[in-house]
Amino acid sequence: MYFPSWLSQLYRGLSRPIRRTTQPIWGSLSRSLVLSSQRRNPEFSSFVVRTNTCGELRSSHLGQEVTLCGWIQYRRQNTFLVLRDFHGLVQVIIPQDESAASVRKILCEAPMESVVQVSGTVISRPAGQENPKMPTGEIEIKVKTAELLNACKKLPFEIKDFMKKTEALRLQYRYLDLRSFQMQYNLRLRSQMVMKMREYLCNLHGFVDIETPTLFKRTPGGAKEFLVPSREPGKFYSLPQSPQQFKQLLMVGGLDRYFQVARCYRDEGSRPDRQPEFTQIDIEMSFVDQTGIQSLIEGLLQYSWPNDKNPVVVPFPSMTFAEALATYGTDKPDTRFGMKIIDISDVFRNTEIGFLQDALSKPHGTVKAICIPEGAKYFKRKDIESIRKFSADHFDQEILPVFLNTNRNWNSPVANFIMELKRQELIRLMETQEEDVVLLTAGEHNKACSLLGKLRLECADLLETRGVVLRDPTLFSFLWVVDFPLFLPKEENPRELESAHHPFTAPHPSDIHLLYTEPKKEDVKLLSHMLQALDYGAPPHGGIALGLDRLICVVTGSPSIRDVIAFPKSFRGHDLMSNTPDSIPPEELKPYHIQVSWPTDSKAAKAH
Amino acid sequence: MYFPSWLSQLYRGLSRPIRRTTQPIWGSLSRSLVLSSQRRNPEFSSFVVRTNTCGELRSSHLGQEVTLCGWIQYRRQNTFLVLRDFHGLVQVIIPQDESAASVRKILCEAPMESVVQVSGTVISRPAGQENPKMPTGEIEIKVKTAELLNACKKLPFEIKDFMKKTEALRLQYRYLDLRSFQMQYNLRLRSQMVMKMREYLCNLHGFVDIETPTLFKRTPGGAKEFLVPSREPGKFYSLPQSPQQFKQLLMVGGLDRYFQVARCYRDEGSRPDRQPEFTQIDIEMSFVDQTGIQSLIEGLLQYSWPNDKNPVVVPFPSMTFAEALATYGTDKPDTRFGMKIIDISDVFRNTEIGFLQDALSKPHGTVKAICIPEGAKYFKRKDIESIRKFSADHFDQEILPVFLNTNRNWNSPVANFIMELKRQELIRLMETQEEDVVLLTAGEHNKACSLLGKLRLECADLLETRGVVLRDPTLFSFLWVVDFPLFLPKEENPRELESAHHPFTAPHPSDIHLLYTEPKKEDVKLLSHMLQALDYGAPPHGGIALGLDRLICVVTGSPSIRDVIAFPKSFRGHDLMSNTPDSIPPEELKPYHIQVSWPTDSKAAKAH
Repeated sequence: MYFPSWLSQLYRGLSRPIRRTTQPIWGSLSRSLVLSSQRRNPEFSSFVVRTNTCGELRSSHLGQEVTLCGWIQYRRQNTFLVLRDFHGLVQVIIPQDESAASVRKILCEAPMESVVQVSGTVISRPAGQENPKMPTGEIEIKVKTAELLNACKKLPFEIKDFMKKTEALRLQYRYLDLRSFQMQYNLRLRSQMVMKMREYLCNLHGFVDIETPTLFKRTPGGAKEFLVPSREPGKFYSLPQSPQQFKQLLMVGGLDRYFQVARCYRDEGSRPDRQPEFTQIDIEMSFVDQTGIQSLIEGLLQYSWPNDKNPVVVPFPSMTFAEALATYGTDKPDTRFGMKIIDISDVFRNTEIGFLQDALSKPHGTVKAICIPEGAKYFKRKDIESIRKFSADHFDQEILPVFLNTNRNWNSPVANFIMELKRQELIRLMETQEEDVVLLTAGEHNKACSLLGKLRLECADLLETRGVVLRDPTLFSFLWVVDFPLFLPKEENPRELESAHHPFTAPHPSDIHLLYTEPKKEDVKLLSHMLQALDYGAPPHGGIALGLDRLICVVTGSPSIRDVIAFPKSFRGHDLMSNTPDSIPPEELKPYHIQVSWPTDSKAAKAH
Repeated sequence: MYFPSWLSQLYRGLSRPIRRTTQPIWGSLSRSLVLSSQRRNPEFSSFVVRTNTCGELRSSHLGQEVTLCGWIQYRRQNTFLVLRDFHGLVQVIIPQDESAASVRKILCEAPMESVVQVSGTVISRPAGQENPKMPTGEIEIKVKTAELLNACKKLPFEIKDFMKKTEALRLQYRYLDLRSFQMQYNLRLRSQMVMKMREYLCNLHGFVDIETPTLFKRTPGGAKEFLVPSREPGKFYSLPQSPQQFKQLLMVGGLDRYFQVARCYRDEGSRPDRQPEFTQIDIEMSFVDQTGIQSLIEGLLQYSWPNDKNPVVVPFPSMTFAEALATYGTDKPDTRFGMKIIDISDVFRNTEIGFLQDALSKPHGTVKAICIPEGAKYFKRKDIESIRKFSADHFDQEILPVFLNTNRNWNSPVANFIMELKRQELIRLMETQEEDVVLLTAGEHNKACSLLGKLRLECADLLETRGVVLRDPTLFSFLWVVDFPLFLPKEENPRELESAHHPFTAPHPSDIHLLYTEPKKEDVKLLSHMLQALDYGAPPHGGIALGLDRLICVVTGSPSIRDVIAFPKSFRGHDLMSNTPDSIPPEELKPYHIQVSWPTDSKAAKAH
């Protein structure tokens, strides 16, 4: 039942949570923290009836008359109870003398989690009864008056079991989940970090915080935009996926430096770890180039970064998209560990091994490999089998595991054969050591890289479950991936193009001509106002948007963005607390000139 | 073409705009402002290619090599041009020597409002050519290189006529309107003021900035809520009118002090000076009472108030709802001037004048009056006639104008008669002086007060158009109106109740029993999650929400909230720039299981 002075730490410099696992605020947190002097500490008891927070009381308060408000956390033998507020825990002595019968009655009879207000004196705990693990462990409260502010009804479950329940239960009773240490910490850190970002942008660099509408026009190809029917028949607003158009129009309007903590909407149906509404730090500047944006963001993160986390190192290293794909098989490489993808095509340029020869003879054909350090020691035969199955199932690619010790090339005479022939070259290129495993594949460049990129992460996870320390979870290794393609073939239909997830969208100078010679036309009618605006003295401009929910996830080490959002939706887009979305009485649809097309009517609707 | 250093003022302390009328940034602003030392000034040229802003250059920059980016504001005889950015104007000398032919060509041929980048040296203007009305008027730029960044196409209208055009045109070309001095000023002041509010709440008083969802469940009686169809047939989200439920749930969750600059949605159809989406400063605290909230808000406004405006005086005076209605005829009285409503029922308690007797004999029957200072001097006969007509048309009430000088009681023998009988009592009660006019009405208390409250404001407007100085437009007279009724009869159906627009919703202790004995039931099923949450240890809590758009209107003296919103909707809820709301192809409605009920089908729909 000990409670650290985490809040003081947070406000001193956004300290690391004591334990990373999600747990209730009343969980046992054993580590004791020394409270040091707090600069820039906000006043938590202004405007309210309490004189102090529960968590702030120390020996320096001895003798003070205090009024505290909080929840009953714990009570023992009707002699004392532990009172909790957002700041921490404090021990309250229940008076035993007859004259205090009414106070005793209140404090002894109120159910756990009831809200009470107590007034009394801060006194020393008797010698030997101090609790060094509890920040308020040197003192206790001798109560004079008590008031039951609100009795708590029987909770739907034992509080101590709450966190072992499903996420669905946590979401249904979100207001109870919010009392947990981890949720309090995450939401307060988020608030503090955004505040520092604002200071950096607004106060230091002259950015203007401008709110842009969320009831707007659909954008071309905006199939992922929620619709909002208006009172005009057949006319709809759309909830935009980002303020992209507005921020560019602001540049045309001479606002010069814009930012917004912007609510964005994307209807992606059921996708894990996505939310139908999310938040981005949206930024646009006039007269800026890529380098300027990069410096701005590096400065922004450095300025707003919590003091007690591993620092972010600036400038961030930079890597081209092509390099990231070739080396890590992804556009968002985890550079905290090695196991890079190595191109070993040259080793097999004149091979007589059929399937390698085959692969190399095709356009963009390559042979690639990654080296798993000590893979032979930590991986079991069935691990290798499941890697090969995964590769066949998801990438239609074959994976050859190659061991230095050739008699361990399970089920793979080809691998034996390769190893014998090319041993020295492979060892040199891959920097392979005894006990390592090389995973080799052959095929088209991008596909081979994507597969090995996936396997690199899978194998890292696997090694870590076996006890190998590969990645430092407290390390933040930001990097820029630059020279993104403007467009990529659509996953679902490779003959069409879609915008890549690029941070910078100016075409590369050497590719500009392609925009004119190889255009794939969008419906520009929906963007006529934008095209017109760009003709009337639009300054060159550039910007960026940081996904705030995911950034806070990274900072707090949270497993899901639902842990850094106060009231998230389930992965199906439901609010489980209020049962949302919900039915609407037909008469409330009428003003919007819409009616429901029930699925049974779907054929009739199509016949129209 | 002079441009004040208003931005420096803004960032030094959010100065007052030079002229209150909306005008283009390139309008002639004659007042010169001395640039004084700027503490806490943000860096406006970090990360970008310019070395300085146009508006910041002074004699202290003489000899410096600078790079500037901006719009061509004005050009004279191919000898110089004026370059503009968001910060101000600067004069640029077009080089005349043959070696600079290419620079000259660019600067002479680029259309007005084109975007250019110039590099050169800051030099003194020749003696006698300084312009004391222009902040940069002591210097000019001797250009070495120039680049045309973007040529401006022919604008759809002459820029200088732009502001004389209709608001519709301003909204259609909002990106051009945003270049105006007034819009730049308003949006920057808004950003600064909100930033200071955040500092006050977050850094000084420990509030947590928490984002709450806008895709939520409809609230009981939520007919003014926009609907958002989901991908589940017949299931909808609603866009809530405020984060009311969430902020209370946060208190149950122990977040203790919450605030949010919250986007809210209200579908009120066509109502002037309302926006379908708007912003409020939303605040909630645990363990607070009315006094605490009042102190918090007073401190918040005082802290964030622009330095150069008339200060807000704290604490604000306080007035009960009953007093406000009785004295000013409204729940939002303008206390910057007198002309209070006086109850003169007692004067006529035993009157024999039929219609007064009649009125006084009914329940809540009263005789009330306001005194218009110098009304006899400034009002014409037709003004009085139009006041009487307004009262009859809109309130079904008769108004008697009473003059000290009885022969001026136009068309009103009754008034003459009253005056003769009750002259002394009326003069004493109303503090009437020669040349004043008393407007008298008789009837039910609330109705008579409402009418006179309306007339009080109408008459004040009228007096001011006639040159009388009644109200200081730069004065801010905030006050609290307290003890609001929880409910009021609905305007459209007085037998039903609706929540009053009250800032504090705790029932008055002496009225609590009425909630149990005279309930008018709402559909509570939609709120079951709230009712449940309040059972599980909810702390006593209180909060408030300030309408940000209107507050900024008041601070900037803007005539419409559309002047303090970057991209407002028209009063019909349209975005005139992009033509929103707009039609949606039927196939994009299908995933949401809705179809349009076209008005011609409405009968068929009703037959269902």
